[in-house]
Amino acid sequence: MCNVESWRRRVPITIWLPQYNLEKLLRDAIAGITVGLTSIPQGIAYALVAGLPPQVGLYSSIFPGVMYAIFGSCKQVTVGPTAILAALLTKYVAQSEDFAYLASFLTGCVILLLGVLQLGFLLDFISKPVISGFTAAAALQISASQLKSLFNTTGSSGGTFIKAVINFFSNIKSVQLWDTLLGVLTIVSLFLLKCCSPSSPLSCCATCRVHSVRARNAVVVFAATAVAYLFYIYGMTPFKLTGPEGLVMPLVAILESIAIAKAFAGTASVDVTQEMIAVGMCNIVSSFAQSMPATGSFTRTALNHASGVMTPAGSLFKAALVLLSVTYLSEAFRFIPRSTLAGIIMVAMVSIVDFSILPPLWRHSKSELFVWFLTVVVGVTAGLEYGIAAGAAGDALRVLYSASRPRLVTKQFKVRYQVGAVDVALVALPEVVCYASVEHVGRVLRTVRGHVVVLDGRTNIHADVGVIETVNSVISDAEGGKRRFLLWCVEEGHGFDGINATLVTGDDLQRIVTEHCIDNRRVSSLSGVS
Amino acid sequence: MCNVESWRRRVPITIWLPQYNLEKLLRDAIAGITVGLTSIPQGIAYALVAGLPPQVGLYSSIFPGVMYAIFGSCKQVTVGPTAILAALLTKYVAQSEDFAYLASFLTGCVILLLGVLQLGFLLDFISKPVISGFTAAAALQISASQLKSLFNTTGSSGGTFIKAVINFFSNIKSVQLWDTLLGVLTIVSLFLLKCCSPSSPLSCCATCRVHSVRARNAVVVFAATAVAYLFYIYGMTPFKLTGPEGLVMPLVAILESIAIAKAFAGTASVDVTQEMIAVGMCNIVSSFAQSMPATGSFTRTALNHASGVMTPAGSLFKAALVLLSVTYLSEAFRFIPRSTLAGIIMVAMVSIVDFSILPPLWRHSKSELFVWFLTVVVGVTAGLEYGIAAGAAGDALRVLYSASRPRLVTKQFKVRYQVGAVDVALVALPEVVCYASVEHVGRVLRTVRGHVVVLDGRTNIHADVGVIETVNSVISDAEGGKRRFLLWCVEEGHGFDGINATLVTGDDLQRIVTEHCIDNRRVSSLSGVS
Repeated sequence: MCNVESWRRRVPITIWLPQYNLEKLLRDAIAGITVGLTSIPQGIAYALVAGLPPQVGLYSSIFPGVMYAIFGSCKQVTVGPTAILAALLTKYVAQSEDFAYLASFLTGCVILLLGVLQLGFLLDFISKPVISGFTAAAALQISASQLKSLFNTTGSSGGTFIKAVINFFSNIKSVQLWDTLLGVLTIVSLFLLKCCSPSSPLSCCATCRVHSVRARNAVVVFAATAVAYLFYIYGMTPFKLTGPEGLVMPLVAILESIAIAKAFAGTASVDVTQEMIAVGMCNIVSSFAQSMPATGSFTRTALNHASGVMTPAGSLFKAALVLLSVTYLSEAFRFIPRSTLAGIIMVAMVSIVDFSILPPLWRHSKSELFVWFLTVVVGVTAGLEYGIAAGAAGDALRVLYSASRPRLVTKQFKVRYQVGAVDVALVALPEVVCYASVEHVGRVLRTVRGHVVVLDGRTNIHADVGVIETVNSVISDAEGGKRRFLLWCVEEGHGFDGINATLVTGDDLQRIVTEHCIDNRRVSSLSGVS
Repeated sequence: MCNVESWRRRVPITIWLPQYNLEKLLRDAIAGITVGLTSIPQGIAYALVAGLPPQVGLYSSIFPGVMYAIFGSCKQVTVGPTAILAALLTKYVAQSEDFAYLASFLTGCVILLLGVLQLGFLLDFISKPVISGFTAAAALQISASQLKSLFNTTGSSGGTFIKAVINFFSNIKSVQLWDTLLGVLTIVSLFLLKCCSPSSPLSCCATCRVHSVRARNAVVVFAATAVAYLFYIYGMTPFKLTGPEGLVMPLVAILESIAIAKAFAGTASVDVTQEMIAVGMCNIVSSFAQSMPATGSFTRTALNHASGVMTPAGSLFKAALVLLSVTYLSEAFRFIPRSTLAGIIMVAMVSIVDFSILPPLWRHSKSELFVWFLTVVVGVTAGLEYGIAAGAAGDALRVLYSASRPRLVTKQFKVRYQVGAVDVALVALPEVVCYASVEHVGRVLRTVRGHVVVLDGRTNIHADVGVIETVNSVISDAEGGKRRFLLWCVEEGHGFDGINATLVTGDDLQRIVTEHCIDNRRVSSLSGVS
């Protein structure tokens, strides 16, 4: 705990900074600036999703960038506002803007605490289908909430996917031509820029094309803002210019960040504790500067990776670029058309939904597929937090159900003696026999055939008290009949230790059965056996 | 499904009635009348606990008695109002009395539906510690809610144990001498009558004593009512005379009934489906006659058993006696002092709490002890329904935790060949590998020693998709190094079938390893092994 090395692991900048050189600096700068160009429009867009002023989304890219450079352990991860956190925040911001800063602070505190207490293993209880279903539900809700901005309709953007869609269609008559045109144009041009692959004949100059693809969000926003400004100069304002939840937020924030870190870390294992400390510090520090909650962003992390980032210092360059834009360009923000931002958000949502999990779920594990659908359906109808809760509960029920039906592998054999033979059933007890399997275990032990039942406790570690009671009642019932129970190889104080059967040890089961059930006086109870 | 025998099993009266005779009739009559004498005061008391008029508690003994005689499968069980159901009902009765009848109807419908759909296995998910803790919390709450009546203090009786105790102590100055005296006298005399064991020198005449013990509740109520009536005749009224929840109620009702049936059925197994049908019918039918929810009562079932009941017909005699009391004695009900009834309830609560589960929990299973305490603490502070929910959630977490740390038993051995030997690790995969164990399984497979890792899938049935992905990433990492993975004896479409390792079968592991990892071209990757 107390040596220098373990402290340095907790502040990773002390590890990579001594080996820093000019080449790394250049590559980090290029990657950082590329990511920064995406962070500006996305930050503004996500602030608007949450119902906050545009600059809040930028503030949340600046301080987290600096803190992640100090505490972050995964070079590719870029911390900033994300669409999902923004969607969760909407409900609170509707009451007061200050809730966003409070949420950021509390999210940071909870994550930091979980990291310090090394409780990262709790994340294992949220399964991949739940994360995937939650992401799909979030993408649907966020996209639906942008319909209002994209078409500049009246009415509210709705708290859930269902409400947003209903609101949109009940106000569909108020669709504004110019906003719709600009929004659709944004989406189309983003997809076109995305499709500019190196093999495409459309590309004129390779370098120019690569950069325009990487910075496509910024390019589109710049173009749209310029158009809007021109309209403004000529006295026209055809576009609507700039002007959408608590304990679940830290969970979602850290889930997003860890899932992204794991996806990009490749073969290196992710230090979950360190990631929690980093994301926690990012949120705590940035909350003092009016930021919304921030965490690892999938799209920007992918961009960072593609731009060849070398160290977490890339975050510093991103933060610097965003800081510059806040300082010198904040006047321009009000000319960014909302429908352009809505288009950017919708296109970003397409890339975060991943349906590739569905075929293996269908082939391999229908119950997990059900959990995925449960998460999506509850998420889009009742709200995102309820979706994640329903998914986690569904997963817990799956585990409970399989725990309630343990396989008690039974082997049958005969032990012969002077005047006959006894049928022996060897029942292998599972590692853990839990309360939910009480009835199942009782039923199996009652119906197993054999004059002697040997309970094989070699792999058994624990049995709940209810199971012990049930097994004892089965044994006391069986004593009246022609059946004997032996408990084989159970360690003292472990599992089935508490049942009322003779405890036997040794490798030779034939000898053990002969000794305990045939050679001694109890032979009488087995007489009449052919 | 459609033969006569299976229909007769669903109406057990058709089975026992043809064999009915005079001896059975006499014994059933004695037992039924004895139980009836207890049903009258307890029924009135529990109606008052729920905040209902006294006769409602009696109505709920009459019709369920008749219905259980027709549909019941366990002769000892006596169905009627219970303290726990009354406590759960309080909250709803506070809004309107009619909710009690509605609750009775709905409770009956839900239980009947569960029975018809054969969903009795769902009850296995409520463990013994949760039932025990819930009973203890209910007894504490019910006793505390009677403090107000016992001492006739002002203020409310409180919705939870904590509130009831706080209310009592904040109104302690309003304690009424006469009520307190009568209440304490009731408790003392009930305990004295209970202690009249056959060996006691106090007993004058054996038969008389046995009957007074069995009918002690009725005796005490009769005496107290007589005293109160005398006071009334002489123009004095020193005693206050007669005038604590939805989906959880069916659950609690059927849990109580099944637990009691199991306790008294002895070696015979309980037909859970039939019990559900019986209790469901009891509640549905009796709800049309202004009854509160009814289920198997522990104290009265024990009395029924002790009185030597022979068939469910005992219920009919109980119902008849209660019906007589409603018809001819309802005028007398208003002279029953509330503090006497409070005393009866408190003494009944002592007998339903069972602390004998605690020592085995302490010795054997600390985590189950924690679940017990969790149920009690949440039950007495937040409310009984929350207690049962917290306990069930705690149990689910215990199962999840053990599922997240499966034991991957590893055996090490060497396989020798011409110029060296390879270390082989044989890792036994558990039956079900669930999503929560993703990190654990990944860690074990990364750190296991050996040049060849053989995954033993002989007992493996299922693995969640997340686990397959993690194992695949461990395998693809290992391929770069000097390690090979083999998958041994996995059935197609089962469990680990989806991983990217060579699937091998056969008994001779030495030969399999030689064939797949040494004899073919891959030997190069294992060269340099000593």
